Amino acid sequence: MGRSIPVLAITMGDPAGIGPEVCVKALARMKELPAFRPLVIGDIDLLKNTLKFLDPKEKMIDFSFSGSELDPSVPQEEGTIPVIQPPDVTLRDVSPGKLSAAAGLAAVRYIQTAIELAKRDLIDGIVTAPINKEAIHLAGFNYPGHTEILAEGFNVKHYSLVLSAEGKFIFHVTTHIALRQALNLINEESVYHQIRLAYLLSKAIGAEDSPIAVAGVNPHAGEDGLFGDEEIVYIKPAVLLAQSEGIPVVGPLPADVVFPRWAKGQYRFCVAMYHDQGHSVFKSIYFDSGVNITVGLPVIRTSVDHGTAFDIAGKGIANEQSMMEAIRLAALLGPKWPFIYAEANK
Amino acid sequence: MGRSIPVLAITMGDPAGIGPEVCVKALARMKELPAFRPLVIGDIDLLKNTLKFLDPKEKMIDFSFSGSELDPSVPQEEGTIPVIQPPDVTLRDVSPGKLSAAAGLAAVRYIQTAIELAKRDLIDGIVTAPINKEAIHLAGFNYPGHTEILAEGFNVKHYSLVLSAEGKFIFHVTTHIALRQALNLINEESVYHQIRLAYLLSKAIGAEDSPIAVAGVNPHAGEDGLFGDEEIVYIKPAVLLAQSEGIPVVGPLPADVVFPRWAKGQYRFCVAMYHDQGHSVFKSIYFDSGVNITVGLPVIRTSVDHGTAFDIAGKGIANEQSMMEAIRLAALLGPKWPFIYAEANK
Repeated sequence: MGRSIPVLAITMGDPAGIGPEVCVKALARMKELPAFRPLVIGDIDLLKNTLKFLDPKEKMIDFSFSGSELDPSVPQEEGTIPVIQPPDVTLRDVSPGKLSAAAGLAAVRYIQTAIELAKRDLIDGIVTAPINKEAIHLAGFNYPGHTEILAEGFNVKHYSLVLSAEGKFIFHVTTHIALRQALNLINEESVYHQIRLAYLLSKAIGAEDSPIAVAGVNPHAGEDGLFGDEEIVYIKPAVLLAQSEGIPVVGPLPADVVFPRWAKGQYRFCVAMYHDQGHSVFKSIYFDSGVNITVGLPVIRTSVDHGTAFDIAGKGIANEQSMMEAIRLAALLGPKWPFIYAEANK
Repeated sequence: MGRSIPVLAITMGDPAGIGPEVCVKALARMKELPAFRPLVIGDIDLLKNTLKFLDPKEKMIDFSFSGSELDPSVPQEEGTIPVIQPPDVTLRDVSPGKLSAAAGLAAVRYIQTAIELAKRDLIDGIVTAPINKEAIHLAGFNYPGHTEILAEGFNVKHYSLVLSAEGKFIFHVTTHIALRQALNLINEESVYHQIRLAYLLSKAIGAEDSPIAVAGVNPHAGEDGLFGDEEIVYIKPAVLLAQSEGIPVVGPLPADVVFPRWAKGQYRFCVAMYHDQGHSVFKSIYFDSGVNITVGLPVIRTSVDHGTAFDIAGKGIANEQSMMEAIRLAALLGPKWPFIYAEANK
């Protein structure tokens, strides 16, 4: 680490989806983003071909082959964006919008390559374009999604996700687990951990004075114990502990108070207790334009919040906004991530 | 019942809050609403005094005293809106924005009077302005809110609530109960009941072709049983049962799919499994402008979705939009409610 300009590995996602297109479109607008050095992991021919979707007056980027894995002996063409192409991937049978095992394999290999680069400390962040769950299953993998590939690759057991849009963030105490079981994982420690993560992230972006709002788990945040006691037994103590350390945190507040205030921008940082509590509101406001941050990995990983959109793949009409935001956040937070990660795991 | 133009009892709410103001402002715009005959339950002097907040060119309404309970012998001044004033209420010590036991007592009496009118079949709906929980507690009542006063008055055990805005509706399988316990109340019967209610309501407003979307309870609606099985064991069978009866219903779908689609208007009718699932999204989009419908009472009851707003009471700046919508829905649904109620309880 310690690179003044962060290097971000951008994985192209399922080659048959809109991933290549949003990568190319976002990279063409690099100047609107904080400084970073891109490294695309994908297919050089497909990427070059996708340049056709750019407005001619914007077409100031090009790609150059940078090896089948990161090989510093491959010289980089000046002014081009390096592309790493994993060795055992072929896109011969891949066409836009068509589900295929080949595309699924490619998508997984791109991520695995990014993980290797991160482990060798050659990058400061991973930004991922969408993969298709069915395609990776066709390719013989059982991963339910991106996060599990990353968790396995980094050998990480505890991870979580943060949703972000317009400089606002939602943290989650629990995520992909049955709601009944999620309730059993809400305790002082797990709530405190997310509050602390929110605080570390707020500091990293210079927003450490912005209050962190913690949602309750029961209607009306339990109405003083009338409808459940998780707020009294677990959440409030976690809030008090964080407050005693000087973290500006409020709550637990009813979910239908916290999230409307978050929606209005009155709070920039919220802690949700379970997956749908954060996701339903987030997606009802931002639909596909948000960014997903994986927390718990040694390197920052951001992701677009939309899917492969096979129905519009290869048509040039995909919107790169979510990818722009994913890159922006990775560029901002990447250099600070080792500190956040170390602090969060203290 | 059977009145061609529905009579709606409008309770003025806590006299120290913005209730009187939103009632007066909404009634001044009656012509924009479906036909109904209003009957305000509140304080004639306060209401007349509140007329000052109307734009002079709109001030075409007036109020007349119509008895301390509904007394057909009291003649009605032509062109005025009748006001019923419960006998044991005095507002001598009530001032705008000030919490008081007198105001709390008044607010409860207004509702109790409306219940009596409904029981005597003199009205077709109840529309309530906001009450203040602290004030009613000061007055010696233990009700947590409006709904409990109504449930007690009508001697009803099973009730639920529907949120509505812009012609869209969210039904709830469970409401004011700890989330852990709510999970135990989600079963084929309770889910089916809300689907059926949604269908009856959709028919009542001529939208019976509009699909009803049912949310799952677990992340990704359980991802085929990977994260919980309520979807497989309870929700899907309820959906299939409803479908077998010709009800256009889809689901269970992940909450973060259903609600964004609802937000966009792709679905007008949604069934949420628990309080916060519906409320958090609803209030993040509509804030205080929605309407609350109580389901399970023999008469329709609609309510504004905002509070007493003591901070702006008596200033003339309260917004009557939510009250307008509450009246609109009660006027539309009131005449059809006896049928909906009977069908739902078959």
